[in-house]
Amino acid sequence: MTDFKIDTRDVFYILKEQLNYAALCDLAPFADLNEKTLDLMVNEAIHFAKGVLDPLNRIAEETPLAFTNGEVRCPAEFKEAFWQYGNDGWTAAVGDPAYGGQGFPLMMRIVINEMMYGACQAFNSAPSLTFGAARLIHSFGSESLKQLFVSKMFSGTWSGTMCLTEPAAGSNLGALETMAYPEGDHFRIKGSKIFISWGEHDLTENIIHLVLARIDGAPAGTAGISLFVVPKIRVNTDGTLSGPNDVACTGIEHKCGLHAAPTAALTFGGRDDCIGYLCGEKNKGLAHMFQMMNGARINSAVSGMTMAGSAYRNALAYVQDRVQGRDIAGRSEGDVTIIHHPDVRRMLLWMKATADGMRSMVYTAAFWEDLSKGLPPGPEKIRYQNLIDFMTPILKAYCSDTGFRVCETAMQCLGGYGYCRDYPIERYLRDVKIMSLYEGTNGIQSMDLMGRKMLIRDGGCLKAFQEEIDGFCATHRNHPVLKNQVAQLASTAGELWSCAMEMRTQMKTDPLQWASTTYPALLAFGDLTMAWRLLDMAVIASDRAAKNGRKNDFFKGKVYQATWFVDTTLPHTIARIGTCLRQGREIVDIPDNAF
Amino acid sequence: MTDFKIDTRDVFYILKEQLNYAALCDLAPFADLNEKTLDLMVNEAIHFAKGVLDPLNRIAEETPLAFTNGEVRCPAEFKEAFWQYGNDGWTAAVGDPAYGGQGFPLMMRIVINEMMYGACQAFNSAPSLTFGAARLIHSFGSESLKQLFVSKMFSGTWSGTMCLTEPAAGSNLGALETMAYPEGDHFRIKGSKIFISWGEHDLTENIIHLVLARIDGAPAGTAGISLFVVPKIRVNTDGTLSGPNDVACTGIEHKCGLHAAPTAALTFGGRDDCIGYLCGEKNKGLAHMFQMMNGARINSAVSGMTMAGSAYRNALAYVQDRVQGRDIAGRSEGDVTIIHHPDVRRMLLWMKATADGMRSMVYTAAFWEDLSKGLPPGPEKIRYQNLIDFMTPILKAYCSDTGFRVCETAMQCLGGYGYCRDYPIERYLRDVKIMSLYEGTNGIQSMDLMGRKMLIRDGGCLKAFQEEIDGFCATHRNHPVLKNQVAQLASTAGELWSCAMEMRTQMKTDPLQWASTTYPALLAFGDLTMAWRLLDMAVIASDRAAKNGRKNDFFKGKVYQATWFVDTTLPHTIARIGTCLRQGREIVDIPDNAF
Repeated sequence: MTDFKIDTRDVFYILKEQLNYAALCDLAPFADLNEKTLDLMVNEAIHFAKGVLDPLNRIAEETPLAFTNGEVRCPAEFKEAFWQYGNDGWTAAVGDPAYGGQGFPLMMRIVINEMMYGACQAFNSAPSLTFGAARLIHSFGSESLKQLFVSKMFSGTWSGTMCLTEPAAGSNLGALETMAYPEGDHFRIKGSKIFISWGEHDLTENIIHLVLARIDGAPAGTAGISLFVVPKIRVNTDGTLSGPNDVACTGIEHKCGLHAAPTAALTFGGRDDCIGYLCGEKNKGLAHMFQMMNGARINSAVSGMTMAGSAYRNALAYVQDRVQGRDIAGRSEGDVTIIHHPDVRRMLLWMKATADGMRSMVYTAAFWEDLSKGLPPGPEKIRYQNLIDFMTPILKAYCSDTGFRVCETAMQCLGGYGYCRDYPIERYLRDVKIMSLYEGTNGIQSMDLMGRKMLIRDGGCLKAFQEEIDGFCATHRNHPVLKNQVAQLASTAGELWSCAMEMRTQMKTDPLQWASTTYPALLAFGDLTMAWRLLDMAVIASDRAAKNGRKNDFFKGKVYQATWFVDTTLPHTIARIGTCLRQGREIVDIPDNAF
Repeated sequence: MTDFKIDTRDVFYILKEQLNYAALCDLAPFADLNEKTLDLMVNEAIHFAKGVLDPLNRIAEETPLAFTNGEVRCPAEFKEAFWQYGNDGWTAAVGDPAYGGQGFPLMMRIVINEMMYGACQAFNSAPSLTFGAARLIHSFGSESLKQLFVSKMFSGTWSGTMCLTEPAAGSNLGALETMAYPEGDHFRIKGSKIFISWGEHDLTENIIHLVLARIDGAPAGTAGISLFVVPKIRVNTDGTLSGPNDVACTGIEHKCGLHAAPTAALTFGGRDDCIGYLCGEKNKGLAHMFQMMNGARINSAVSGMTMAGSAYRNALAYVQDRVQGRDIAGRSEGDVTIIHHPDVRRMLLWMKATADGMRSMVYTAAFWEDLSKGLPPGPEKIRYQNLIDFMTPILKAYCSDTGFRVCETAMQCLGGYGYCRDYPIERYLRDVKIMSLYEGTNGIQSMDLMGRKMLIRDGGCLKAFQEEIDGFCATHRNHPVLKNQVAQLASTAGELWSCAMEMRTQMKTDPLQWASTTYPALLAFGDLTMAWRLLDMAVIASDRAAKNGRKNDFFKGKVYQATWFVDTTLPHTIARIGTCLRQGREIVDIPDNAF
């Protein structure tokens, strides 16, 4: 039995019955695919995740990372798994076939990541970063860079990283100080980076770093940042390895979780020459990097969602098995399994609704992303771009914070056992915590949502999102089973739209007060999205159940989780909106000395 | 600089200006004490905590516990600290002077524990359990048991434990199977216990286990449980050690946190004879044990509160120092410390209000406890007993859950650095998690609050609590600065009282539905208590500030945290009450198969 638990019925319900994901095969690039090939990939991903990745966690517990003389040694099983992951086509499942990718829709990367991150969060960041880095070169690099690097990274022969953060440039990348000095067809890179996931390891013979640096003489701030490809080992033009580039690992972090994933501090060109290749346009590095960053933000949501799902199902397995205490209503003699205790069921229902709703949010956004990329130019394409741009910060922050909360609740179901390493939940709790902190903290996500995302394309992002919710409410306002909840969604949405408009004005007139409530505003948008997705699933289930005579427990569950979530969550959403609209200025006005 | 951070101004503000804790010296047993002696003890506790306990955490990181051949080896510094803790009088600060205690009010144990748990959670559970176990013998044991054990435990020569849980008897102690067979003046104990904090270690030459077991032939369930004193090494009547008793440690847990505190599985009488002494009345063991259990529940609240406080102040120190990004309102040139970013201030203000409010809740309850014990018999004594009985489950659950949330928020203030071991916050987060799980899970606390505590003494507990809140609101309803918030407290309280009455009826008529909402009801009581304590502090501060011309930042902070907390939290409290009163039965009705 594996630690990673997932209900494939839930997964396919969203993919097929809610989203009809096979519709992606109608897009030109995916004409060769069909529903069966997509289904097969989902099932195979679960198989691989459980068979190959899940066992890595316990191996990592017993053989922690070793750092000596600038080198990181991982357990041998990690190296084997990384090779197999690439060889079986998982690394580049959605990559360009011209470079060895499998050409699946981007959405499949999200579904695959649900399985792979769920089975081993620490491991899966390695191939996931590798793909993201390779895709960046593929999107913006010259043909020769693409030829040299992309296929080797797609196949998992080499790995990749994303090097942004420096000690004094974390959230504020404009402050970064790593330099690039032109030298013939390449640059010499000089500087230090920290918090580089898989920045050093022994899984592959080469590591390809995607590095943000400032070309000598470039403008200050974010307008002077360029993107470079910096291999750990230099590569000859025929693709063979030449000799070491000066990329030195000066240490790895000791972290709360993710003990099996090295987080490295790197120095480029500290002792010797470190060669890098410009990728894309000069001074456009930050814009280019945002392709990878947005992918990483959505992957944070995937991680939060999948660890929530597996934590929930581990808790469920426990409470179905653990006998303790009498039935409070005396429905049976003797001691009962604790799933019969209502307070345990309260936790289960919240976890179920939350994990399921987050999966639907994430899949829906992934579906939109393919449409935004694959549709021919026109208003529909722009609409989907608006939707995915709007959803990205909501997904990243809401699913990371809520995923953590689900792991906490799952632990609670196990009592003291939940605190022990014998069960995977305490590891999930520690691993998932990073998601709210990296790829832009959740506070920064909230400022992106309520700031930039409210302004770009003349407010088109919010408008597109609003049309989705309002349209859903209009369609289902007379639904025989769910009309009360649909009405509650509609009225809460109305209040949130006004709140968002008021905050958009406030951003200019009173930016301090605005910035003091962007986070509760983001949570309100998250609640609303969850309520919408859960009601949408419930509408489908309720209609099916009506045809079947309501005998299906699975469908009942979809309806119960939606009515309960909406009725008990949206009043809190209203409270959050109240916080945003409140006039009090305590956060802004309180003197620093008073803290 | 120590990891443990505390603002003594905050501590003394509650002790002196809010509670006037020196009033305890008017109680007969404390006639020899005065405000100065109490103040001195608080300051000395901080000094000891920072000087002796705080450094233990990092030592423990480097020298983890070793378990070999049934023995646990701790770092040598722990042994030294345990001895010094006892020798300096901390273990028995509130113990009976006739047995070497210092005779301080019980409240001082809470204040001391704030400092000691805050400095080293893992360590302080050892002397804290030792005192609790010794106090149990002192309260219920025969004179000879008291002579043999109490002084040696008060002085820290021997340590103590609390042995309740068995593999099949966690939350349901009625199921416990450890047996006691009469044999002359003692019993032979046979059985196994798990999750025994400090159940095995090398800090002291003897460990005195307080064990729940069933005397051969005793009634089933909780009515047949007795309490026994079971030393690890047998003790001669003159107090010298004789030879080993058969108490075997079969393993220690690998936990999410508290790595330096051994959590042992123990087998009594598995190979040889294990002798134990009856403590108190036959079959009254569970009732006796509840003295220690209630103390442990309040200590869980102390832990949650103190780790929240130190996490907050660590985050504060970081954001005052960390430079990143521009001022959003352009109030200054160049990059600023991140305390200037409103979203960071939002987190700070929430943590400040929460940590401060929890401290006030906990101290207030501790103050009540001394009054309930120290006052002469009469209605006032009963009133305080009602208050402390009512507050115990609220404190335990609310402060453990909220303390965890504060540690999470503190980590968020540090971004990626918060995830690293270089800062203590990730350790606080892992350590504090246990508080919601042990000493009765938080779900069980909520059933105790909304069940037993609503019924005992004819509903006197709720009535006493209600009088406190209603009285406060009546007194301050025209307060010039805080009247709006007082009105909000009054109206929220009114709704909660009706809700509690309705749930009291529902407990009988529909126990399943009742049990599905006891937890949100407990949180509502917690919110209300917090709002009340914060407003009470703010009233005092506001009145002082009015006299001083409002120039004091400290007083301003007390007012700002209260108005902001009340306005942004009580709407969520109303939402929780709505959840409790809602008619929907999804939690009860959802089929098990639908999870």
